[in-house]
Amino acid sequence: MIDVQADAAHNRMVVTFVAEPALVVDAAMAGAAVATERIDLRQHHGEHPRMGATDVVPFVPFADLPMGVCIDLAHDFGARLWKQLRIPVYYYGEAARRPARRELEKVRRGGFEDLAGHIDDPDRAPDEGRPEVHASAGATAVGARIPLIAYNVNLKTTDLQVAKEIAKSIRASSGGLPNVKALGFELADRGLVQVSMNLTDYRVTNIWKVFSVIRDEARRRGVEVEASEIVGTIPLAAAVGVVKDAVVEPAFRMDQILEKRVWAEE
Amino acid sequence: MIDVQADAAHNRMVVTFVAEPALVVDAAMAGAAVATERIDLRQHHGEHPRMGATDVVPFVPFADLPMGVCIDLAHDFGARLWKQLRIPVYYYGEAARRPARRELEKVRRGGFEDLAGHIDDPDRAPDEGRPEVHASAGATAVGARIPLIAYNVNLKTTDLQVAKEIAKSIRASSGGLPNVKALGFELADRGLVQVSMNLTDYRVTNIWKVFSVIRDEARRRGVEVEASEIVGTIPLAAAVGVVKDAVVEPAFRMDQILEKRVWAEE
Repeated sequence: MIDVQADAAHNRMVVTFVAEPALVVDAAMAGAAVATERIDLRQHHGEHPRMGATDVVPFVPFADLPMGVCIDLAHDFGARLWKQLRIPVYYYGEAARRPARRELEKVRRGGFEDLAGHIDDPDRAPDEGRPEVHASAGATAVGARIPLIAYNVNLKTTDLQVAKEIAKSIRASSGGLPNVKALGFELADRGLVQVSMNLTDYRVTNIWKVFSVIRDEARRRGVEVEASEIVGTIPLAAAVGVVKDAVVEPAFRMDQILEKRVWAEE
Repeated sequence: MIDVQADAAHNRMVVTFVAEPALVVDAAMAGAAVATERIDLRQHHGEHPRMGATDVVPFVPFADLPMGVCIDLAHDFGARLWKQLRIPVYYYGEAARRPARRELEKVRRGGFEDLAGHIDDPDRAPDEGRPEVHASAGATAVGARIPLIAYNVNLKTTDLQVAKEIAKSIRASSGGLPNVKALGFELADRGLVQVSMNLTDYRVTNIWKVFSVIRDEARRRGVEVEASEIVGTIPLAAAVGVVKDAVVEPAFRMDQILEKRVWAEE
């Protein structure tokens, strides 16, 4: 178990654990069984959209594990969720079986209440199980994906418009940098504004790239970067990528990290 | 064993291995015994200065090991070198017992032949053993230090003077950046020049700092950076430091590297 996050406003818990591929599906099933027993979505309220007591289960490759292994694990887990707990399953991300289901937001749109009313529409049919939500536990999104990076850049201005403009100029959905989601926020108590991002594929667009584009866009508007913040964890490969990009060292490799070489021997 | 380097010109071998503190002195002693048995400095010639068949043995802390542990290991190893193999020992680096011996270059200056003639001078007296070199195996420098970083920046010019000037402006010994050794070289076959460096304490002066100073110094002379190269391994903390410096993220911590968090649990 490497991380647990929960708070009253969201009224949900995000659990991050690491296991050998041979053990991880059993561990995830044990968690899902407890959630199914204890959480009744008809009684549940929280700020975040959700469609299941076990809402979303992404399998994320650690270190050098191939994505294909995580996709197989996701499909194994999804089949067992239906077979053992009678929870219908939607595959998303790299494990998606329909192109329209690659994005989690699209799978979960409308949440439990909406899905309960429309699960018999052909285009909302689950990938595992019958088109009927579990009465108390809803449905579950099961996926495979690389780690996301949550990354913010703070700007020395109180002009929210600057953050919003820059966010718009870099986000993938408005033609900016690929695999970047971005929003502009005010940090009113600190007299700053923030460009808040999710980098959904650091192999395509990494931290140094978005930092330097935001810095240049801010300078064009006469604004300086105050600092940036990496939220939570990032894979070693992403940190190695920042070194490569920032100091123009295209040949730098992960096994030049001393710890990586030693740990890899164990 | 994580690295072995040897070549005919140097006629020496650099062996890097990792071990638990409780085992590392025995392992180093086993290596020193073989070197003492097989290498006779009276027959040995090579490009690199040396004063011992086992020339220099630095104990380098890995991951979170305190330096004090490495200093104790160095002193334990040094005492055993004298006691078991009759090789006089000089402590250097963090393990030095005289301020004048902190720098390896000063301890080793003149090599075996010079030391053999002057070891009875009071200021050349060994820290372990009698003031007499071992007839065939000389003397050994034993130290404790953090990992060195070998780092080069290549410049898009054939003007060697540019590399030499920049090397001079950044090296610690001519008033540049602390803990930086730097020389200018020609890479004639590639039409480039190179600023070649050793960073002796990346906690004080790290890769991003020297890269950005060299880039700015080169630009002032109308020259661009071609690329840089990190030679061999660097500690994870140094890579994390580059991320912090390059994207202005002073709060970024080593345990935000996913692999670090997982490996630390094992």
